[in-house]
Amino acid sequence: MSAARLIGLLQGPDRPGLVARIANGIFQRGGTILHADQHHDAETGVFVQRLEWIPGDREREPHEFQRSARDLGMEVRVLRSDSKPKVAVFVSKIPHCFQDLVLRWRQGEFHGELVCAISNHPDLAKFSAAFDLPFHHIPVAPGENAAAEAAHLQLLRAEGIELVVLARYMQVLSGEFLDAVKVPVINIHHSFLPAFAGGKPYHQAHQRGVKLIGATAHYATRDLDEGPIIAQDVTRITHRHSVEDLVRKGRDLEKAVFAQAIRAHLDGRVLVCGKKTVVFD
Amino acid sequence: MSAARLIGLLQGPDRPGLVARIANGIFQRGGTILHADQHHDAETGVFVQRLEWIPGDREREPHEFQRSARDLGMEVRVLRSDSKPKVAVFVSKIPHCFQDLVLRWRQGEFHGELVCAISNHPDLAKFSAAFDLPFHHIPVAPGENAAAEAAHLQLLRAEGIELVVLARYMQVLSGEFLDAVKVPVINIHHSFLPAFAGGKPYHQAHQRGVKLIGATAHYATRDLDEGPIIAQDVTRITHRHSVEDLVRKGRDLEKAVFAQAIRAHLDGRVLVCGKKTVVFD
Amino acid sequence: MSAARLIGLLQGPDRPGLVARIANGIFQRGGTILHADQHHDAETGVFVQRLEWIPGDREREPHEFQRSARDLGMEVRVLRSDSKPKVAVFVSKIPHCFQDLVLRWRQGEFHGELVCAISNHPDLAKFSAAFDLPFHHIPVAPGENAAAEAAHLQLLRAEGIELVVLARYMQVLSGEFLDAVKVPVINIHHSFLPAFAGGKPYHQAHQRGVKLIGATAHYATRDLDEGPIIAQDVTRITHRHSVEDLVRKGRDLEKAVFAQAIRAHLDGRVLVCGKKTVVFD
Amino acid sequence: MSAARLIGLLQGPDRPGLVARIANGIFQRGGTILHADQHHDAETGVFVQRLEWIPGDREREPHEFQRSARDLGMEVRVLRSDSKPKVAVFVSKIPHCFQDLVLRWRQGEFHGELVCAISNHPDLAKFSAAFDLPFHHIPVAPGENAAAEAAHLQLLRAEGIELVVLARYMQVLSGEFLDAVKVPVINIHHSFLPAFAGGKPYHQAHQRGVKLIGATAHYATRDLDEGPIIAQDVTRITHRHSVEDLVRKGRDLEKAVFAQAIRAHLDGRVLVCGKKTVVFD
Repeated sequence: MSAARLIGLLQGPDRPGLVARIANGIFQRGGTILHADQHHDAETGVFVQRLEWIPGDREREPHEFQRSARDLGMEVRVLRSDSKPKVAVFVSKIPHCFQDLVLRWRQGEFHGELVCAISNHPDLAKFSAAFDLPFHHIPVAPGENAAAEAAHLQLLRAEGIELVVLARYMQVLSGEFLDAVKVPVINIHHSFLPAFAGGKPYHQAHQRGVKLIGATAHYATRDLDEGPIIAQDVTRITHRHSVEDLVRKGRDLEKAVFAQAIRAHLDGRVLVCGKKTVVFD
Repeated sequence: MSAARLIGLLQGPDRPGLVARIANGIFQRGGTILHADQHHDAETGVFVQRLEWIPGDREREPHEFQRSARDLGMEVRVLRSDSKPKVAVFVSKIPHCFQDLVLRWRQGEFHGELVCAISNHPDLAKFSAAFDLPFHHIPVAPGENAAAEAAHLQLLRAEGIELVVLARYMQVLSGEFLDAVKVPVINIHHSFLPAFAGGKPYHQAHQRGVKLIGATAHYATRDLDEGPIIAQDVTRITHRHSVEDLVRKGRDLEKAVFAQAIRAHLDGRVLVCGKKTVVFD
Repeated sequence: MSAARLIGLLQGPDRPGLVARIANGIFQRGGTILHADQHHDAETGVFVQRLEWIPGDREREPHEFQRSARDLGMEVRVLRSDSKPKVAVFVSKIPHCFQDLVLRWRQGEFHGELVCAISNHPDLAKFSAAFDLPFHHIPVAPGENAAAEAAHLQLLRAEGIELVVLARYMQVLSGEFLDAVKVPVINIHHSFLPAFAGGKPYHQAHQRGVKLIGATAHYATRDLDEGPIIAQDVTRITHRHSVEDLVRKGRDLEKAVFAQAIRAHLDGRVLVCGKKTVVFD
Repeated sequence: MSAARLIGLLQGPDRPGLVARIANGIFQRGGTILHADQHHDAETGVFVQRLEWIPGDREREPHEFQRSARDLGMEVRVLRSDSKPKVAVFVSKIPHCFQDLVLRWRQGEFHGELVCAISNHPDLAKFSAAFDLPFHHIPVAPGENAAAEAAHLQLLRAEGIELVVLARYMQVLSGEFLDAVKVPVINIHHSFLPAFAGGKPYHQAHQRGVKLIGATAHYATRDLDEGPIIAQDVTRITHRHSVEDLVRKGRDLEKAVFAQAIRAHLDGRVLVCGKKTVVFD
C-alpha cells in the first residue's frame, strides 16, 4: 500500500475501444492498474468507469489522464490516494451523527481530514475539544440566514474545505449557498415507506403502523432532499416499538448510512450522473 | 398439537384488571392458555391482545369468550384452529405470486383452504389444473367491470369464501365491490424509497438510482394502496442491476411479502386498528 | 410514564390456569398490567413470561409477586423501572465498543447507570474523563490474572455493580472469577459462517471467500464463547472488501449487537433458560 | 441485447499492463467491451477479471481470446451469451428447491436450459410432467450407490449436461462421481451460527436459542459441504418460532440462495480461486 495511487472516475457516451484506449494510455505512461470497474448503461448508452492505478509519473499523470479522457469525450475526476480531502461538518444540537463521525475519524475509517465543526449552537464544543477538533459557533438569528451563510462560505474557503457534511444541521441551506459553495455537500435524513409529508414523521410512522423505517444520504441540491442518493438502509419495526424506540432506531440508521456515504465519497466511489449516482462498491 | 385451539384477537380501551379478567374467564370455563401477547399503546390508551388457548368446551367457548370480551368493552374476533378459512385468489397473467402461493399451499404452509382461482385471463388455467385448483375465468371487458364484479361476488358467496387475496390482479376493484364483499382482501404491490407516481416505477427507480426497492402487502380498502399495511420488505440494488434485474428482484420480494401477509392473517396474527395493523409475530 | 413500573420474568413448568393466576394476583394486589408476553414451548413444556405492570403497593409488590410466582413453581426475577442497575464496563485498548457504549449511555439509551470503566491498559482513560466516567487501570501481568481478578471483584463489590459488560476486554476471565462475580457478564465477539478455529479469523474468512460476517453477544459462562446467545447480526461482504474492510464492518456489527444485548438485558427482556435465552422484543 | 456477447473470466498472477493488453486485444480483434470488472487481491497478488464484450468475429474470438489470455499466464473461461448451458437437477422427495427452480426457469430467470430432472424417488414426476421437464427415476438401493452413479454419469453425458444442481438430493455423491462428472455441481444446505454437528440441526438450533438461521450454496467437492461458497443468506428468528417455523423459514432461504447461486454461475459471474469464489455481482 506504500505507493501512491490515483483514482479516476469517468462518464460519457460509450464508443468502441474506450476501455482499451483508457487502459492503454495508463500503461503507456508507465502506470499499473490495480482495480477497474466499468459499466455500460444499456438504456442511456452512458459509460461509467472507476479506475485505481499506480501512476508512472505521479506529478504529471493526473493532468495527462484527464486530458486524454476528455479527448475521448469523457467527464473525468481524479483523486490522489496521498492527498486527503479537507472536510467540514455542520451540526446543530442533535449529537449522534456528529459524535459517531468524529469517533470513526479518529479510528482512521475515512480517507480525508476532518478540519472543523461548524454549528449554530455551542452545545457540542466540549465534545469537539475532547477530540481536538476546531469548533466554530456561528449562530443563525431568525431571518438572518444570509449573514450566517456568508460567514460559512468565508470559513470554508479560508480552510480550503473540499467536502461539507451535514450531521443533522437543522437549518435549511439556501440555493445561493449551495451554488456558491462549489464543493459537494452530503446530507442525511430519515425515509419512510410510505413517505410522510409534514412534521413529526416518526409519530406519523407509528400511527400508520409502518413495518420499516429508513435513512437516506444524498448530495444536497437546490431541490431539498431530492439530490442524488448515495446510500440508503432500513430497519424493521413492530407495534412493540414506541415512538421513542423508532427515534433511537432511526439514529442508528442515520449514523450508519451517513458514514457509509461519506466513506464512499472520500474513496472516490461515487459518480454523479444527472439526478442519480453510481456507487462503485 | 392434537387438541383444537382457539385464537382470540381483542382491542379496546384499556382498564385495570383487563388481562386478569380475560385470563380468568378462560380458566374458569376450563381452558388452558398456550400463548398470550398483549400490548398497551401508551399514546392512544388502546389495549390489544392475541390469545391462544385450549378451550374447556370447544363448542360453547367461542361464543362465551366473545360475549365476555364485549362485556369488557372490547372488539373481538375468534378463530378455531380446526376450521380452515376458505380462500379465493384473484390473478391476471403475471404468474409469480400466484404460482408461489399455490406451491406453498400444497406444502402445507397456510392455515386455510385454497378453494379457487379467479382470473380475467385464461392463461393460468393449466397450472391450476396441475394442482387440482378450480379455476374460474371471468373476463372483464373494458367498461364492464360492474358485471364482472357481480359475477365475482356471486361466486365468492356460493363458495363461502372468507378471504380474498389479489396475486397481482391487474384490475382495480371498485369501492362498491370492496363494500359488498364483506371479507378481508389482501393486496401486494411494489414500494419505493422515495415513492414514484405514475407508470413504470422500476424504470423510474432505475433512472433515479435508488439503492433499495421494496414490496408491501396490505388490506385493500377504498383508498387504493393505502389500506392497513400487513408486511413489508426491501432488497438492495446497485447500478449493476438492469431494469430487468429490478423487476426480477421485485418479484422475489412480492412473493415473500405476499405469503408472509397471508400466513399472518390466517394464523390470526393481524389485528386492524383503524388505519394500521398490529401483527403479533 | 411517570408511575414506577415493575417488570417480572418468569419460567417454569406449565400448568392450567397459570396466566390467570398470575394476572389475577397482580390485579387483586391493586396492580395494572401494561404489557404481558407469554410463551409455551411445545417441545419442553416450559412456560416463560414477561410482565410489566404498575403495582398497587410499590414497596411490597416485588416481594409478594415473587412469593406467589414461586408458589406456582416458577423461577422469577423482578426489576423496578425506577431503579437503575449499576454497570461496569471492562475494556482493553480496542476502543470502538467502549466508546459507542459511552456515547449511547450519555444519549440516554440504556436503563441503567454506567458506574465505571475497568481496563488492563491506560489508553482509554482520557476518553473516559471527557465523559466523566471513573476509570480504573488494573494491569494484568502475565501469569498474574488471579491478582487482577481479585482486584476486579473487590472493586465490583465496593461499587455494588449489578452487570458487567466486556467491551472487547482481551483477557480471558477465569471460571473462578465467573463463579465468584455473582452478576451477569455480557461478552461480544465476531461470528462466522462457517466458523473458523484459531487466530486471525478475518484473514481466514477473507481467504475462504465467505459472503457474510457476523457478531454475537452472549452471557459469559465457564465454557468460553458458548454462553447463552442474546443477540446476533450479520453483514454481507464481497471479494471487493479487503481484510481491513472486514475488520471495519466487524466493528460496526459488534457495536450494534453489543448495545442491543445490553439494552435487552437492562430492559428486563432476557430470560436465561438453561443454555439458551428467550428475548422478549 | 440482440448482438451475441462473450463473457470471459480470468485469473492469474498480476503484472503490469495486464488490463491494457487484454482490452487492447479485444479492441484490435474488432470487439466492443460492454462491462469489465477487475480486482487485484493485495494479499495474494492474484488478478481476477470478468469481461463482457461484443466480439468482432463471434466464431474465432472465443479461441483467440483464450489463447491470448493464456499467453499472459492467465487461467481463462469463455461463455457465449447465445449458447445456453444444459443443466440437470437432482432431487429426492423434498420439493421446495426443485419446484421453485422449475418455476423460475419457466419465468425465464436463468441463462441456461433445464434439460432433465434426476431423482431417486418417483414423487416429483407429476410436477415435472406439468412443466414438460423430462424426469428420470434412478432408484438408489442401499449399498448400491455405485450402480446409480454409473447410470447418472451415462445420462449426464448422453444429454451433454454442463451443470448439475442438487435441489436437496438426499444421497451423498461419492468422490469418484465428483471426479468423473467433469462439470460443476452446485449444492444447497442450511447453515447455522454457531454451527451444529450431527442430525436435526433445526432442533438443535431451537434448543440453543439461536437468533439467526442461514443457507449456503456452494460447489460440491470431495470435502463435503466445504466446497467454495457461492452465496449465503440468513434470516432472523425468535423464541416465538417453533421448529416447524424454522424449517419453513429455512426452506425460503434455501430457495432464494440456491436460485441466486445458479443464476450467478450461469451468468458467468463466479470465478473459483482455490477454496474460494469471487462473485462478480
